[in-house]
Amino acid sequence: MSKTIITAAITGAIHTPGMSPHLPITPEEIVEDAVRACEAGAAVVHIHARDPKDGRPSADVGLMKGIVSEIKKRSDVIICITTGGSIGMPLDDRIAAIPALKPELASCNAGSINFVIEPAARKLKPVYDWEVPYLNGTKDLVFSNTFLSLERYINEMYKVGAIPEFEVYDVGMINNLAYFLKEGILKRPIYIQFVMGILGGIPASVDNLVYMLKTAKDQLGDFNWSVAAAGRNQFTMTTAALTLGGNVRVGLEDNLYLAPKVLAKSSAEQVTKIRGIAEALFKEIASPDEARSILGLKGKSEVAF
Amino acid sequence: MSKTIITAAITGAIHTPGMSPHLPITPEEIVEDAVRACEAGAAVVHIHARDPKDGRPSADVGLMKGIVSEIKKRSDVIICITTGGSIGMPLDDRIAAIPALKPELASCNAGSINFVIEPAARKLKPVYDWEVPYLNGTKDLVFSNTFLSLERYINEMYKVGAIPEFEVYDVGMINNLAYFLKEGILKRPIYIQFVMGILGGIPASVDNLVYMLKTAKDQLGDFNWSVAAAGRNQFTMTTAALTLGGNVRVGLEDNLYLAPKVLAKSSAEQVTKIRGIAEALFKEIASPDEARSILGLKGKSEVAF
Amino acid sequence: MSKTIITAAITGAIHTPGMSPHLPITPEEIVEDAVRACEAGAAVVHIHARDPKDGRPSADVGLMKGIVSEIKKRSDVIICITTGGSIGMPLDDRIAAIPALKPELASCNAGSINFVIEPAARKLKPVYDWEVPYLNGTKDLVFSNTFLSLERYINEMYKVGAIPEFEVYDVGMINNLAYFLKEGILKRPIYIQFVMGILGGIPASVDNLVYMLKTAKDQLGDFNWSVAAAGRNQFTMTTAALTLGGNVRVGLEDNLYLAPKVLAKSSAEQVTKIRGIAEALFKEIASPDEARSILGLKGKSEVAF
Amino acid sequence: MSKTIITAAITGAIHTPGMSPHLPITPEEIVEDAVRACEAGAAVVHIHARDPKDGRPSADVGLMKGIVSEIKKRSDVIICITTGGSIGMPLDDRIAAIPALKPELASCNAGSINFVIEPAARKLKPVYDWEVPYLNGTKDLVFSNTFLSLERYINEMYKVGAIPEFEVYDVGMINNLAYFLKEGILKRPIYIQFVMGILGGIPASVDNLVYMLKTAKDQLGDFNWSVAAAGRNQFTMTTAALTLGGNVRVGLEDNLYLAPKVLAKSSAEQVTKIRGIAEALFKEIASPDEARSILGLKGKSEVAF
Repeated sequence: MSKTIITAAITGAIHTPGMSPHLPITPEEIVEDAVRACEAGAAVVHIHARDPKDGRPSADVGLMKGIVSEIKKRSDVIICITTGGSIGMPLDDRIAAIPALKPELASCNAGSINFVIEPAARKLKPVYDWEVPYLNGTKDLVFSNTFLSLERYINEMYKVGAIPEFEVYDVGMINNLAYFLKEGILKRPIYIQFVMGILGGIPASVDNLVYMLKTAKDQLGDFNWSVAAAGRNQFTMTTAALTLGGNVRVGLEDNLYLAPKVLAKSSAEQVTKIRGIAEALFKEIASPDEARSILGLKGKSEVAF
Repeated sequence: MSKTIITAAITGAIHTPGMSPHLPITPEEIVEDAVRACEAGAAVVHIHARDPKDGRPSADVGLMKGIVSEIKKRSDVIICITTGGSIGMPLDDRIAAIPALKPELASCNAGSINFVIEPAARKLKPVYDWEVPYLNGTKDLVFSNTFLSLERYINEMYKVGAIPEFEVYDVGMINNLAYFLKEGILKRPIYIQFVMGILGGIPASVDNLVYMLKTAKDQLGDFNWSVAAAGRNQFTMTTAALTLGGNVRVGLEDNLYLAPKVLAKSSAEQVTKIRGIAEALFKEIASPDEARSILGLKGKSEVAF
Repeated sequence: MSKTIITAAITGAIHTPGMSPHLPITPEEIVEDAVRACEAGAAVVHIHARDPKDGRPSADVGLMKGIVSEIKKRSDVIICITTGGSIGMPLDDRIAAIPALKPELASCNAGSINFVIEPAARKLKPVYDWEVPYLNGTKDLVFSNTFLSLERYINEMYKVGAIPEFEVYDVGMINNLAYFLKEGILKRPIYIQFVMGILGGIPASVDNLVYMLKTAKDQLGDFNWSVAAAGRNQFTMTTAALTLGGNVRVGLEDNLYLAPKVLAKSSAEQVTKIRGIAEALFKEIASPDEARSILGLKGKSEVAF
Repeated sequence: MSKTIITAAITGAIHTPGMSPHLPITPEEIVEDAVRACEAGAAVVHIHARDPKDGRPSADVGLMKGIVSEIKKRSDVIICITTGGSIGMPLDDRIAAIPALKPELASCNAGSINFVIEPAARKLKPVYDWEVPYLNGTKDLVFSNTFLSLERYINEMYKVGAIPEFEVYDVGMINNLAYFLKEGILKRPIYIQFVMGILGGIPASVDNLVYMLKTAKDQLGDFNWSVAAAGRNQFTMTTAALTLGGNVRVGLEDNLYLAPKVLAKSSAEQVTKIRGIAEALFKEIASPDEARSILGLKGKSEVAF
């Protein structure tokens, strides 16, 4: 039986500084949490950059390069660079880091959905002016990933030897992947991150996970997979993934808490927690190099940072 | 047990004149097919308008008014006016007919997806210049229905006493409805059209239908529902809907064929066919007034056309 | 796509003479209905014998031989001989016809369940004294098919070149087959009859059928399958099977009606009805020889009757 | 949210002394493990008796009385008395302890299945002569629980104020309960133990658990439930139950191991382990009295031992 890959999504582009003082903002904070997450058991870190001035999500390639090269210096962890970008970010900006930095792994959102985090604004005490309008803006947002842009992103990734990690938010997106596979655009190995519980996508329930897995087996044959769940269902859903033989993603991008009403101080804390559950279920945790082998990655030395 | 409602979707905005000589284009053709579909057993007709010059989908309210008032004159059928509009149509245009015409029933797309009909262009012999670019354009299209626009559409419909028929294209959209229900924006009775088999949405399979029904029962409690399926799965999926106790939508919007390689000459032909299957399964077909009662509609006399 | 096999289960051992004057009892009646079912489109007839005196289910090999050799004389239909026998019949009696008659196909019940038809006694106007006690007796009945007897039955069938048609009444029985496959006792091709709606087994619902199919695909890989449903769900469930790409069993063994409150005059009438639905769904009906090829049968000339 | 009930099934009738030196055999051992299981967090202990001479399952009411009255003296734990008995035990023996001891909770097997533990004999080093024939005998065993006996058992339990804990081994058994509910024989509250992974019943998979839950919600409405899984899936399946909001059963009846290749020294060790996982998932563990309230039990003082 394959070892379990833990991914830590360090900061993302959904949460805002007012939601938790522990959300990493500066490159130093992001690097530090990524390194510690790896020490705690994460084989992969999923990286977004933020503007160090005010924590706003940033598509600045230089900023991203600074972060990932520093992580690389300090850790063997696999670095997965986002192409999800942030709310309303142009397509060209979202992909820019991939040809520039040639990562081993890059996120690739497998279709379009409404992506609504506006309810989080209702109880927010913002630190910065941009936070509330940013969240409210999602009420009128489509997270756009058309077939044309998906094809482009996949091609850009393959061109630099990166494997796409497909963020799947609903059942139909699995069929999108089956379509790209049939068209010869998508190639094996296939790696899916089921991202559950986003308002606009499929809710985070064990039933839904079981059904998406069944669908993906039917439509794609073999594939690697992991589960990320938004908010308070993070540990329930990642534990369910473990009972189904899957890999797991935790981290402050997905959930700011370690327990009900207890903020997590770092993604590393969440890694430690899910690692404990995994080991209680007799899973062995994959090292970064074991994860490279499972996912078919090109290796740490092949990146451009 | 409730009677079965047959809906006929007369022309839609997906198929183009080059695909079938039988696709109704002019107001006269649309009216004629709608009236005949009702005579064949449809209780509801779902209406889009097209520019009579070249068959291009049109948001012209005058054109729509001409069509629906003529149908109303000639038939008791329930008229469901689209708010899906067509590819790339602005939101304001898509909703314009609702306050103007105050229909009993109006389609309301329950979320955003990629809506890709580009593969249909590959084998098309177009009649008009716009057809191929129109289809190809869907490769870069998101069919956008944000939460803000959904809320607006629902409110506009309720304001004129129209019941929204929610077009659901994937599992997560059911949760969108549950959210609007919880927020007090959506009210009962709820009517869902599961639209299956659009590339970008959930594929047309019995498994997927069973799963969406289960999900909707869990999340919404009681609701009325029907199934429409794109292309060659139309009769398989609507028959499956019948075995599950549901209502059905046929019509040239969804499928141009009556049998493999046999073009349907009208939506009425498809109505006759599915009616035969329904009656073989001991279903009674709802008349327009019986359908009004099942769906909770205000009545034919309350419309503004 | 494979053609559709219609099986007609002519008389069974569940219904009793008081339930319908059309239930075939004598060898002549059974033969006649079998021959007509084939003419109507059935490729397979499933045969039980009954005592001509009072319609009681019979394990008499001579009686069975008379029936099947007469059918063989008059028709090319595939003859599937029961090993289900009847309520309380000893194991040795149930299997006796197989080595004696060496059929192409024989039913083989894939596990043990309660098999309760006692509620049918409540409203019965019996013709014979045995009917009510027979039905009431099922309240205390286990339909016993232990692993030892299953192994024996499979071996006896293979010894004479018969293919077992596995009657599967619940999800766990699929795992029984997977176990026998793993142990090398069961060999491919595998043919499953999902028998749904027996009180004690899985109810006749589309959800349950979809779930059993998924389970069987997961556990067995390739297999042929058909659906039989008890009572008033017969046509709904067999139609659902058609929409799922499966084969169907009808016949008076499963259901005495042609429509609500309308008794079927023969299994042939039910064959005609389901054939019509299948053809409406663009299915081609398999002839007996086409069914032989699909199921991997040895051929009509290889039987011992 | 309701607290989580942990049940410990102390010794059962499936495992034999040769399988583990830690399997409790004598009344003293059974009592000791039950008391310690409660101290570790179990709110319920499920009790079978064994002949202290050779560990053979026993239906001796005096033996049972000795065990349960000693547990009662030393612990507040809820005592659930088996009516499953053991392989081949007569129905009268299996129920005898219920009227005699009037427990709060009693197991009640919800239908008949093959119950095959013969493969365990293949690698067994038996301590006693009876073990191998006992296990081998299950190859020809039906675990018989006819509708008549089920009705009798339910009635006997209600007569003494015991709540039946329904052991459900396959999907169809849920319908058995729905039938008894409709007939007025079964009354609320309903408590189900899904027993998964018995050869002959439904396999222990998360998919199957999700499906049985869905089915039970559809067919029964509200009910309490717990999961027990045979063998090495014990912790995976009970953890899955926790992620689904359910209760859990562990104990040496179901699984002799604490980890791969590591024998559990007691049921208490398994309770400690699953309790740790439950608490990692933020569940609160029900005390015996909290479990009494959840399950609707009559109270410790109302038993006849």
